[in-house]
Amino acid sequence: MTKDIRAGEIAVTLPDTFDAGVYFIGRIHTPWTRRGDCPRNARGSQAECTIELDPRYAAALDGVATCTHLVVLYFMDQARRDLVVQVPGHGAHSGERRGTFALRSPARPNPIAMSVVRLLGVEGTKLRVIGLDCLDDTPLLDIKPYFASTDAVPEAVVGWHKAQKR
Amino acid sequence: MTKDIRAGEIAVTLPDTFDAGVYFIGRIHTPWTRRGDCPRNARGSQAECTIELDPRYAAALDGVATCTHLVVLYFMDQARRDLVVQVPGHGAHSGERRGTFALRSPARPNPIAMSVVRLLGVEGTKLRVIGLDCLDDTPLLDIKPYFASTDAVPEAVVGWHKAQKR
Repeated sequence: MTKDIRAGEIAVTLPDTFDAGVYFIGRIHTPWTRRGDCPRNARGSQAECTIELDPRYAAALDGVATCTHLVVLYFMDQARRDLVVQVPGHGAHSGERRGTFALRSPARPNPIAMSVVRLLGVEGTKLRVIGLDCLDDTPLLDIKPYFASTDAVPEAVVGWHKAQKR
Repeated sequence: MTKDIRAGEIAVTLPDTFDAGVYFIGRIHTPWTRRGDCPRNARGSQAECTIELDPRYAAALDGVATCTHLVVLYFMDQARRDLVVQVPGHGAHSGERRGTFALRSPARPNPIAMSVVRLLGVEGTKLRVIGLDCLDDTPLLDIKPYFASTDAVPEAVVGWHKAQKR
């Protein structure tokens, strides 16, 4: 646990055992080595990051270079996992209590982050991308092609967020 | 392993141990109880599905009902995890070899599926949604708010897919 609980936050007791396991299949390299340096969200940065895949899985990249955008899943292994209600500590939403599943916070029962990235290039097992906001050396879980037909919903609204922007 | 390997497919030896664990935080209920009945992709169905969250995490839903769309992560626990090159067995792309990371196939080192769903309603710890394509009783990993500003890329292209449609 790298973060103390804030006033108003609620933690639950997690199950005693995990239900399944994941492999770290690579590492993500970013310019940010401290949590406070990370952009608040991925659109806040145009920084180029590098996804370095374990060579074991190299053949699985066949066809990836034809994609303009990818879905990247990664493991926020420094986040606590027991918070169900959180009080974001920064930005426009500071001090407001929200349920974990209404937030993109790394703190969640399964700290799996999802980012949509723009693919700049593939060189061997390294992918140069734009659109990540995580710490350097974050463990990689998965890479998927981004299909606009199923993944793009430009009209989607997060009501609590929209209300706060007013 | 519920699926034999097809001609042209490549499997690798997976690591001996997992690097992290995940909790199944609920179950997804769909109309499909056999693999062959599942829609080929989520846009193929307007079927209403139900996400049933473990009551332990109920407080984490606060604010979720204000979202029109959600990102749902779930665990495809019946898929084999060692395929790096696959030969999809159905549809327009039948017979073509593709790297796992260029596909949305459930077979991947970490069989974590990501779907964007439309939220119809929240009742207690049950969420009624449209946009899932998985088997009934699939384990739930995470629910996130879908932010159009970072998650919607209508112009994204999957080159190999576009080329095949011609």
